Amino acid sequence: MRYRKIPNETIRRLPIYLRALHILSQKGKVSTFSRDLADMAGVNSWQVRKDFSYFGAFGKPGSGYEIEGLKKQIAKILRLNTCHRVALVGVGNLGSAVLAYAGFAPYGFDIVAAYDCDPKKVGTKIHGITVRDVAGLKNFKKNKIDLAIIAVPESAAQQIADRLVRAGIRGILNFSPVHIQVPKGVKVITIDIAMDLARLPYYMS
Amino acid sequence: MRYRKIPNETIRRLPIYLRALHILSQKGKVSTFSRDLADMAGVNSWQVRKDFSYFGAFGKPGSGYEIEGLKKQIAKILRLNTCHRVALVGVGNLGSAVLAYAGFAPYGFDIVAAYDCDPKKVGTKIHGITVRDVAGLKNFKKNKIDLAIIAVPESAAQQIADRLVRAGIRGILNFSPVHIQVPKGVKVITIDIAMDLARLPYYMS
Repeated sequence: MRYRKIPNETIRRLPIYLRALHILSQKGKVSTFSRDLADMAGVNSWQVRKDFSYFGAFGKPGSGYEIEGLKKQIAKILRLNTCHRVALVGVGNLGSAVLAYAGFAPYGFDIVAAYDCDPKKVGTKIHGITVRDVAGLKNFKKNKIDLAIIAVPESAAQQIADRLVRAGIRGILNFSPVHIQVPKGVKVITIDIAMDLARLPYYMS
Repeated sequence: MRYRKIPNETIRRLPIYLRALHILSQKGKVSTFSRDLADMAGVNSWQVRKDFSYFGAFGKPGSGYEIEGLKKQIAKILRLNTCHRVALVGVGNLGSAVLAYAGFAPYGFDIVAAYDCDPKKVGTKIHGITVRDVAGLKNFKKNKIDLAIIAVPESAAQQIADRLVRAGIRGILNFSPVHIQVPKGVKVITIDIAMDLARLPYYMS
């Protein structure tokens, strides 16, 4: 509860720092400095220090931040210190790529269910997950699934989101380039690859 | 040149505002308020006003921001007022999804070339684009390609980036969950879907 006042923009950067800390840790480092994290995260080092100050992590002069402790602290704030079970809706090219993606495990995510409306796909296995009929989107609470990923065509995204919310999903990662509306208490994060691409030309002078 | 001092974090938000303005414009709106843009972008309205103040866009009391003018201004800052030709490397599931993605056009992006190392894919057409052999990654300047998207396995990402940079690419959108190192003057933006997912649990109390 005491973390409530951390700004959204800091929360957005915490997983980036966490990834950087993972990488440093894999390289055998035990401590790091704000300027190294800043380089890896693409921000200024004062930003790193300010972000960390929100939850009382202060580097020691000369020795910097202790990596393992900082990783645990950030994971706790982000509620990544417990596992999260995830459902995927839509197993076209993008959904299949999501199922093949190896990067979820370090954050404690486990994709345990996949859904599609294509009868040819329902019942098949993709990367070890059996595809189920989208008509059966329910029982998420019973199966302890609290997150969902939407990888369906634009035209279906809002309808799928509505059904996910009714089925008890509280967090949605959306790949459709549409603004999905959800009731209060449900969080949607939209990944729009065009928007990320749109930041590049500014830096190419 | 006068825009040089805009912070990275503001630049990151500008495409989000631009998308929101596109949506409002499609709905037939001609003006908007910072609080509406803030809602759509998931930030506070003071943040919108502060971001816009960096380039001298100030809403009028009572009538807010004029949408078309603001769209043009943001596009100009982001250098999206000219078209950008893009090369894609890697046409697996993710790369194929990128080729099928319809959201690039509003920002002036055109994917004009696709590469893969799989001999079975080279020469085939995916969503209208002929896949070429990755061995032929060159002549980007001649073909006026200035951006590239990397959708190859982790282990190949750095090597592909090195070759893209040698071939004249100045901006890379990277889908591999690795930290790609590039020389000064080249910008890499990494999309790591696990990191975006990692922000969700914080908001699900």
